[in-house]
Amino acid sequence: MSVEVALAQTVVASWKLVAGRADKLFNGLSDAELEQEIAPGKNRLIYLLGHLTAAHDRTLAILRLGERLHPELDEPFLKLPDRAATEIPSGETLKAAWLQVNAALLAGVEKLTPAEWIERHADVSEEDFLKEPHRNRLAVFLSRTSHLSFHIGQIILTLKK
Amino acid sequence: MSVEVALAQTVVASWKLVAGRADKLFNGLSDAELEQEIAPGKNRLIYLLGHLTAAHDRTLAILRLGERLHPELDEPFLKLPDRAATEIPSGETLKAAWLQVNAALLAGVEKLTPAEWIERHADVSEEDFLKEPHRNRLAVFLSRTSHLSFHIGQIILTLKK
Repeated sequence: MSVEVALAQTVVASWKLVAGRADKLFNGLSDAELEQEIAPGKNRLIYLLGHLTAAHDRTLAILRLGERLHPELDEPFLKLPDRAATEIPSGETLKAAWLQVNAALLAGVEKLTPAEWIERHADVSEEDFLKEPHRNRLAVFLSRTSHLSFHIGQIILTLKK
Repeated sequence: MSVEVALAQTVVASWKLVAGRADKLFNGLSDAELEQEIAPGKNRLIYLLGHLTAAHDRTLAILRLGERLHPELDEPFLKLPDRAATEIPSGETLKAAWLQVNAALLAGVEKLTPAEWIERHADVSEEDFLKEPHRNRLAVFLSRTSHLSFHIGQIILTLKK
């Protein structure tokens, strides 16, 4: 295996570890538990589930991996803070969307060649990318991995010792 | 620039973003603020500062980048939970150690070639690495980036809106 392929595979393996940890956390939560706040007055778990699903769905587009699956989640979970939307999907609906979006994202990134990883992401123009080559797919994906870890650190606070 | 060099540079750039965010958070905290808990009954910020410093110091050894700088932090911040050690260093001492350890870590990883990134880390033997080539330096470094993001997600909860 070439060095560049090994590097790309390690990045995807790291994502799988983090996403798998989130899967386990969300999967074990009842509707009542999804109403818990990560800390007094802070986001509820159901909001973070929707927020992460929406963020990963957007990532499908930013990485140019295909069409988005759930753009309807942007308004309640990316644009608005928790408790601001008049209505949000059920926990069951969000859990299904979470698994669906992450499966599509993983299938997409597993197909990327090393050269494709360092191609521009969708939010940067071809002109700007010539001057700013660090704005590549891998940078976005690592940023999404960190974003997921960031929220896992919060979700874990609601667990009993 | 080759694809493999671009991949390695993107990984280091991602670390710098996350570590820079943590620097800003810790740097702005007074001794009194370092005593805050991330949530009722959970870790204090000073514990997380020591914990992350100790974890990154250990990473110097695991990535085989050189001698550790602060192994004395393992006992109070890795082995023991918050409030269990009889004495811990001051906030000022820990902030200085944090900057020192991260500077050493960054200097070390910036020198790694792509081929060195996929070499074994120090906690896996040469024999085991032949069977488990995913246990490489990059896997450790990505895991440390996620670990840092995980705790930043908690630290941020103590900030006023």
